[in-house]
Amino acid sequence: MTTFQHGGDIESFAKLCGCGVEEVIDLSSNINFVKPNIDIDFKTIDISPYPNYDKLYSKVSTHYGVAIDEMELYSGGSDAIFALFRDALESGISKCTIYSPAYLEYKRASVLFGYELLIIDRFDSMDGDVLEGSLVIFVNPSTPDGFFYDIGSLLEIWKSRGCRVVVDESFIEFTPYSSAVELLDRYPNLYILKSLTKYWGAAGVRIGAIISQPSNIKKLKSKEPLWKISTIDSVYIQSVLDDESFKSRSDSANQKSREYLLHLLQQSRWVKHIYPSVANFILVELEGITADWLQARLIPYRVMIRSCENFDGLSSSHVRVAIKSIDDMRHLAEVLDA
Amino acid sequence: MTTFQHGGDIESFAKLCGCGVEEVIDLSSNINFVKPNIDIDFKTIDISPYPNYDKLYSKVSTHYGVAIDEMELYSGGSDAIFALFRDALESGISKCTIYSPAYLEYKRASVLFGYELLIIDRFDSMDGDVLEGSLVIFVNPSTPDGFFYDIGSLLEIWKSRGCRVVVDESFIEFTPYSSAVELLDRYPNLYILKSLTKYWGAAGVRIGAIISQPSNIKKLKSKEPLWKISTIDSVYIQSVLDDESFKSRSDSANQKSREYLLHLLQQSRWVKHIYPSVANFILVELEGITADWLQARLIPYRVMIRSCENFDGLSSSHVRVAIKSIDDMRHLAEVLDA
Repeated sequence: MTTFQHGGDIESFAKLCGCGVEEVIDLSSNINFVKPNIDIDFKTIDISPYPNYDKLYSKVSTHYGVAIDEMELYSGGSDAIFALFRDALESGISKCTIYSPAYLEYKRASVLFGYELLIIDRFDSMDGDVLEGSLVIFVNPSTPDGFFYDIGSLLEIWKSRGCRVVVDESFIEFTPYSSAVELLDRYPNLYILKSLTKYWGAAGVRIGAIISQPSNIKKLKSKEPLWKISTIDSVYIQSVLDDESFKSRSDSANQKSREYLLHLLQQSRWVKHIYPSVANFILVELEGITADWLQARLIPYRVMIRSCENFDGLSSSHVRVAIKSIDDMRHLAEVLDA
Repeated sequence: MTTFQHGGDIESFAKLCGCGVEEVIDLSSNINFVKPNIDIDFKTIDISPYPNYDKLYSKVSTHYGVAIDEMELYSGGSDAIFALFRDALESGISKCTIYSPAYLEYKRASVLFGYELLIIDRFDSMDGDVLEGSLVIFVNPSTPDGFFYDIGSLLEIWKSRGCRVVVDESFIEFTPYSSAVELLDRYPNLYILKSLTKYWGAAGVRIGAIISQPSNIKKLKSKEPLWKISTIDSVYIQSVLDDESFKSRSDSANQKSREYLLHLLQQSRWVKHIYPSVANFILVELEGITADWLQARLIPYRVMIRSCENFDGLSSSHVRVAIKSIDDMRHLAEVLDA
């Protein structure tokens, strides 16, 4: 069967199912199913001139509680990741430590840019020693399991080992926890990655952010082209940040859906272990069946899930299910209860 | 007076004029004033999932008459330029030859990435010798003057000197000339840069392309993040490429406007020299006044032009004027005739 290297490739999945993309129920990618209210008349957006990002920077930096010179924007999180790996290499950093499993783009970037790579298995032990002077990658809450770590003591260790640290907070808005932004003053080598698409329900909008100390941001910014973010995407993000009711609507709906999914998983005889998650997805270890088997059973329902076989430390029996509307997850119940 | 480092910064200019951005008449940036007919209901575009670029690649590569594996897309031309400079450096190329004046991002990228740089002044002589084994940058039609060069013999010289060649064809759609795409088979080290925003009248849409031999594209593609182009921008570009009447409408309106602007410039006692242009802008050498003086006189009319003082080989008396609607250029007549 077709293996999907990442979640959300609904066009390929639709082909496999022989249906239209709009018919796919995507439980494989972690995009918020609750959508912000936007008040945009797209036809009135003037896309003729070159973009000016002043208002966007102002709005997004205010949202994150940082100064404009503490933040650089990118055409999405993966663009930002590549910028971080290039910049570290230019700064003479040649080693990378990835707390894994983690979002696969990190390993890909590390290999592509020729870093000496150490994988620390989070599920094995958090005490593994990082490579001295390395670029440390820590996703918090983690993927694909959604656990939130208190990284205070880890930061001290990383600092003592002379590391540059990237904390990827792409999913932190789904949790009640505080951002590492508060710690910036204490850790000059801390870079925080933010996604403006997952929580805000629009992966098609390509905007991500890196937050760090002004001197780090200045260096990153100097290597960026004049323009890269779409004017329409910029307007979209500014608009969603104005939706003050979004957080409570999103929290409430995600909580209800999480409870439904957890209940469903707990009832299933195929489920061996449910990993604790505060994010909008749940990692499951299956028993007696594989993720591929489960995916095959879900094809008639056009439901797409994420096999986690290609994550370091996980196996063919690990599957990640995104928290979506109860209606969308109902078919999962039919198959898991069978 | 404020110096604008590039054209099109209408927000800063509007502040200078004390007016709204929508009141600025922008003759400083070379965006087509003729707009394609688009048939998009933006509200129906599903921005929730991660983008899938298959249809976009198919449509754009067909448009340029190349195979899908001969092209990589970027979030705009400047993003593509930076990718080219990074890739050349990784391939062991440490020198750069820029035929100047040229779009300033090239010099900026060359300096940023630490290239040994040679500037060849196109207005002085085209016989200057390029640096052996260098990355050669040639913009055709050129900026800021709009001259189209037959590069056949130059390509032979560059090839004999072991150079990698970037031909920037951002404005070629405004001309009757053929693309260097035809020459790809003969020059394995030829990279052609395409802009999908200038001719199509939307600089706010960030999509650019690099066309080259499949092995070169494969290498470039391997260093790119999974997603970078906005879904809405992708839909927009696919739609404009469907507007079959656009070319004739654009050609006809630009021709009329060019004739009007040329006539106006020829009549003016301030104009010493008009550079021959086949693109949608005209470079002028002024006499008795500077570009800044002319710009200051145009502020009451909210008309923005492009001083070319910061281009290599040009001076404070060089100004570039974009070809726009006759109505927009009328105020220029009032000042130039004074």
